Amino acid sequence: MTEYLPEMVESCSLRFDSDSGYVEIIDQTLLPHQLVWRRLESLQEYLAAIASMQVRGAPLIGITAAYGVAHALRLASSDDALSAVYAQLLATRPTAVNLRWALDVVHDAVLPLPPEQRPAAAFDIAHRLRREDIHNCSLIGEHGLALLRPLQRKGAVLNIMTHCNAGWLATIQWGTALAPIYKAHAAGIDVHVWVSETRPRNQGLNLTAWELQRSGVPYTVVADNSCGYLLSQGQVDAVIVGSDRTAANGDVCNKVGTYLKALAASAHAVPFFVALPCSTIDWRCNNGDEIPIEERSAGELLSVCGPDVEGVSREIRLAAHNTPAFNPAFDVTPARLVTRLITEAGSVEASAQGLMALR
Amino acid sequence: MTEYLPEMVESCSLRFDSDSGYVEIIDQTLLPHQLVWRRLESLQEYLAAIASMQVRGAPLIGITAAYGVAHALRLASSDDALSAVYAQLLATRPTAVNLRWALDVVHDAVLPLPPEQRPAAAFDIAHRLRREDIHNCSLIGEHGLALLRPLQRKGAVLNIMTHCNAGWLATIQWGTALAPIYKAHAAGIDVHVWVSETRPRNQGLNLTAWELQRSGVPYTVVADNSCGYLLSQGQVDAVIVGSDRTAANGDVCNKVGTYLKALAASAHAVPFFVALPCSTIDWRCNNGDEIPIEERSAGELLSVCGPDVEGVSREIRLAAHNTPAFNPAFDVTPARLVTRLITEAGSVEASAQGLMALR
Repeated sequence: MTEYLPEMVESCSLRFDSDSGYVEIIDQTLLPHQLVWRRLESLQEYLAAIASMQVRGAPLIGITAAYGVAHALRLASSDDALSAVYAQLLATRPTAVNLRWALDVVHDAVLPLPPEQRPAAAFDIAHRLRREDIHNCSLIGEHGLALLRPLQRKGAVLNIMTHCNAGWLATIQWGTALAPIYKAHAAGIDVHVWVSETRPRNQGLNLTAWELQRSGVPYTVVADNSCGYLLSQGQVDAVIVGSDRTAANGDVCNKVGTYLKALAASAHAVPFFVALPCSTIDWRCNNGDEIPIEERSAGELLSVCGPDVEGVSREIRLAAHNTPAFNPAFDVTPARLVTRLITEAGSVEASAQGLMALR
Repeated sequence: MTEYLPEMVESCSLRFDSDSGYVEIIDQTLLPHQLVWRRLESLQEYLAAIASMQVRGAPLIGITAAYGVAHALRLASSDDALSAVYAQLLATRPTAVNLRWALDVVHDAVLPLPPEQRPAAAFDIAHRLRREDIHNCSLIGEHGLALLRPLQRKGAVLNIMTHCNAGWLATIQWGTALAPIYKAHAAGIDVHVWVSETRPRNQGLNLTAWELQRSGVPYTVVADNSCGYLLSQGQVDAVIVGSDRTAANGDVCNKVGTYLKALAASAHAVPFFVALPCSTIDWRCNNGDEIPIEERSAGELLSVCGPDVEGVSREIRLAAHNTPAFNPAFDVTPARLVTRLITEAGSVEASAQGLMALR
């Protein structure tokens, strides 16, 4: 169904072990220092994996949650049990709409079935969502590539800026924002990526840099603060980011800091693209003001983990004791700052009208 | 000459020990975890203190450098020796214009004197610059306060956002951007400060939070990435930052990330003030494009120090080995995004015409 870069065959964030019947995920909180696969053996482990961001990225959250429902139904598959697991998984992350979307798909498909048929049916649906995600991300890559090609100046490197991680670690394979970059690299385009570190959790530094390194795509890490400077200096040909939830008017909710990049791209007339599977579109949400913004723990800002000079993993404190901090995880970029939305069904204008074509 | 808040008497970043004849500075690289005063006993120690950012902030860099000249002249005070120390100190930091300004003041004053009179004269000038800096920062505080008062909504907290550290740690006392905040607090205004952590060196988290905590001014630390969100939510009544160099047209060069805040403030019609002593104005510089932007070591981005759970100071690695990184230390905010420049001589429009009134 999809063509892979040779190095993409092994680039998969979640796998299903058909012998054991368990799902295994990469524990993304340990990257880039360690690549550790974890088997999810209980609903509690699913809930913790999503809430603690061992898995993150809107598409991957959704598919992991779908498997979580299937897993839980093996133990108890009554209507009440189904409702309970749905509610528990939905509560793990409030902003990403794929989570609700994937849970709804599974829930609505298995509810009419007799309880004993529900577990197998739920697994079948989760498998299907997984396959579709790979296919959709590959298509996003192709549609994005078509937008990138005309931006390359003859003989020059094509400089793309991204934020956070919207690569295959955020989906199953390919990614959303990174899919066009992988396709461009595979097509022989001389692409270079500005990776914004993405405080406070450093998903750019930890995940995007790791992905690009693995795939041989040239990149340079910068502080989030440097992005305005790079744009002002003509060092960026396009910005591409992902989306955790897209409102029906084209407003985009994505990792906090996205909005600042969009403002700066607009100030320098640099195209600002948002790559998203249609499952991130929330048709019930009229505009970005209606999207709940998750507030995460202040601790994410005030301490950080990593290996010391001897390679021993340490947590260190960045701030004085009892420093008050506020940690919103997302922000909203208004549609007027978005050049195009790139979906599996093609790229569209970021507007109610543009999105309507996808409905 | 200046009135202090009671807690400001002890808030001083550099002191001269008249018994020993040595200058002592706070080693700002150790804040907020340790308050350590270091005596500067050689020109090498002056050069290292500035280059390694034990002292930082445009005004403090300038005054430290003036003392550095005086110190070096004690050992050798010929014309050649004077030229050599001038050049060495000037090379420590390329962006801050006060460095050149302060060096020029000392150099030009002592050059006509017989070599044996130069050391004492240089110390007198450094002392004078130090006194003037305190006085000027206090005046900046008063002029800034006059701009803040009308922004307070009846019964509401006055929310100010700042970036990096432009407090008394960046000057001798009071600070530039923080001076109006200290004056507002002293005047009984219910002020609260959003402190942007200021990657990659975290001067907001390390220095501004520490200063405000010491002075009892309420504050909350946020990721640099959160600032667009806060502005979009009406949580900010004004942004105030400092300046490392101000061009003759009103363009402002300040810590990288300032420009993104200015774009976001402008998008939400929130006043964006820049507080600066006139010594940061570079009359020879027509606009921000002419200001050299210091690039600092990639290591500042890729590793970080702090105490572990047992309080032992550790350096940890944030990124994978050999991660390529780019670390510009400053950016330029164009004059059109600056609501007012606040100087010791009053606040003026950020334009060639506005600045001309100060000349």
